[in-house]
Amino acid sequence: MSETGSSFSATQSYTLAIDGMGGDGGPEVVVAGLAIAADRHPSARILLIGDEKRLQALLAQHPRAAAICTVRPAGSAISMEMKPTAALRVRDSSLRLSMDAVANGEAMGVVSAGNSGAMLALAKIVIKTLPGISRPAMAAISPTTKGDVVMLDLGANVACDWRNLVEFAVMGEAFAKAVLGLPAPTIGLLNVGSEELKGDERLRQAAEVLRGSPLARQFHGFVEGHDITAGTTDVVVTDGFTGNVALKTGEGALKMAFTLLRQVFSSGLLGRIGYLLVRPGLERMKEWLDPRRYNGAVFVGLNGVVVKSHGGTDAEGFASAVDVAIDMVTHDFNAGIRDQLSRMGSLTASRFSNEKEPTQAVSAS
Amino acid sequence: MSETGSSFSATQSYTLAIDGMGGDGGPEVVVAGLAIAADRHPSARILLIGDEKRLQALLAQHPRAAAICTVRPAGSAISMEMKPTAALRVRDSSLRLSMDAVANGEAMGVVSAGNSGAMLALAKIVIKTLPGISRPAMAAISPTTKGDVVMLDLGANVACDWRNLVEFAVMGEAFAKAVLGLPAPTIGLLNVGSEELKGDERLRQAAEVLRGSPLARQFHGFVEGHDITAGTTDVVVTDGFTGNVALKTGEGALKMAFTLLRQVFSSGLLGRIGYLLVRPGLERMKEWLDPRRYNGAVFVGLNGVVVKSHGGTDAEGFASAVDVAIDMVTHDFNAGIRDQLSRMGSLTASRFSNEKEPTQAVSAS
Repeated sequence: MSETGSSFSATQSYTLAIDGMGGDGGPEVVVAGLAIAADRHPSARILLIGDEKRLQALLAQHPRAAAICTVRPAGSAISMEMKPTAALRVRDSSLRLSMDAVANGEAMGVVSAGNSGAMLALAKIVIKTLPGISRPAMAAISPTTKGDVVMLDLGANVACDWRNLVEFAVMGEAFAKAVLGLPAPTIGLLNVGSEELKGDERLRQAAEVLRGSPLARQFHGFVEGHDITAGTTDVVVTDGFTGNVALKTGEGALKMAFTLLRQVFSSGLLGRIGYLLVRPGLERMKEWLDPRRYNGAVFVGLNGVVVKSHGGTDAEGFASAVDVAIDMVTHDFNAGIRDQLSRMGSLTASRFSNEKEPTQAVSAS
Repeated sequence: MSETGSSFSATQSYTLAIDGMGGDGGPEVVVAGLAIAADRHPSARILLIGDEKRLQALLAQHPRAAAICTVRPAGSAISMEMKPTAALRVRDSSLRLSMDAVANGEAMGVVSAGNSGAMLALAKIVIKTLPGISRPAMAAISPTTKGDVVMLDLGANVACDWRNLVEFAVMGEAFAKAVLGLPAPTIGLLNVGSEELKGDERLRQAAEVLRGSPLARQFHGFVEGHDITAGTTDVVVTDGFTGNVALKTGEGALKMAFTLLRQVFSSGLLGRIGYLLVRPGLERMKEWLDPRRYNGAVFVGLNGVVVKSHGGTDAEGFASAVDVAIDMVTHDFNAGIRDQLSRMGSLTASRFSNEKEPTQAVSAS
């Protein structure tokens, strides 16, 4: 279906607006991903935005995707290299029009595999930050030995103060409820472990506020790097610099383990026979750790659901990002944040009112 | 041999002073580790400090260790839980006397498996910081797909300014030369990767200074979390908070991979047969990733070699820590730092003299 020629109405409501042009694989991967998503979410209604001719041609090849999509033409696309400040000036980009659709109430969320810096900047300006949240954060799900863990911030804010960390805890808890389906997710604050070096003042203040908050029962206190994959808590809260480094370091270590395993199984006849014997188990292990299963970092703290698919992902990965966005829309993720904030609000406001205001963190830009 | 009754002279020179009481395993693990070290370094001369009776009894069981050790009695030991400020007041602890031996020139380095906070605090006070270095850092070697990587700081300084990061680069380079034997180690500055978020001002300043320094050719620029295990550079420089989290996150991810692998190989008869077929390769992989091979975090930037063995390690791990200390003593690690500092000195001093002084980082304590 195309809007061109259809009786489009501004009150029409879509589940998601999708940037058809984002990502290294471009519209081909997006539409192939939507074909997978269509099987999982047949009642979803997708507003697919981008180069109309290319998107319609691809939808013709993917009738399942076509069944849930409406195409909206966009005059341009934001490249992966474009600076956020430049991206903000492009009014007719597929990314901008996707954000507009959320801002004007046509769609409940947006998914893009495009430029994340541009995405964050546009989301702040167009969709806007939730009342009571000072800065949006980037969250994602990672595998642990026990289950899944939600980590945030993963890079939206390279420096944070205690207030940001408390807000991240609130948003991470709501995210774990909506996407992991946990009734009372536990929360850890990432810190260093040695006796002398229990982090800095902002960590101690954030911990103090959480201990005295309605989240106190779920707050586990400080956790260390190895607790992330151990699944010690369901949510791990940290600043965007540390979170980004931790996420990529963990992924790198797993990649190294698989590289070394490949060498083990490809050395000699015994190795190859051994591989054949344990292949089903290894496949399950790879699937468990597959980054595509976790594709879909989320910008939380905005007036709408904003999901960033990895730029280099394939159709399966893009479909996972759509899954995450639909989970968040379905479980009304933002209502969870608003509820928690209203319970926290007076507490965080008053707690340090007699002390000096915490140092304003330096902005990331 | 015991000093008690021997004609000890203050000019007598030991390769290393060793805290016989540190670590979860206590003197048993230390002396068993020294027995392994004695085979590798038969000409080393060790001053072993602690509870004389216990140490002599253990040396009687380990004649190889006894051959290279001289025992010096200490009246007390620092517990793993003691706060650094309290540890500083204990004058007769085995850790303190070990540091004293380095400070008064009796020994060239010290190894302890004890309380790291106490160790850093005592080292700063007793052994003192190298001229030209503002703050010591904690460095260690980690495995990568290609070889080994030196990472620092791993927790000595939770916050750092650009000057600290430049000094860490100088010390990390000297460490990679001394311990990994690399003629011209490459250096990376750990950062976040996304376009908009290339870290903060202190990272950009540190990078600018390094690009204009005698280390320019070895300086690779910014690296990301996944570059650590990819072996993109030989040295990875970061602040102590990020470094501590990255190290533990990487270790945690590898631990998770091994836990999942164990499940693969223990599920059913095929899994167990598969395991038997690939066991030699798996053992090599485990050995490569074995934290004991890398045991021995080093406090760099002090007037002597100071090596921290992991508290929970076994004899093999303690022997690795002794290896690292002896490598550093043998290759005169500190001379390498002094040389590089004298070449860098005027440069870093003048570079930002026209700008405002960089913000003094908050101390960790």
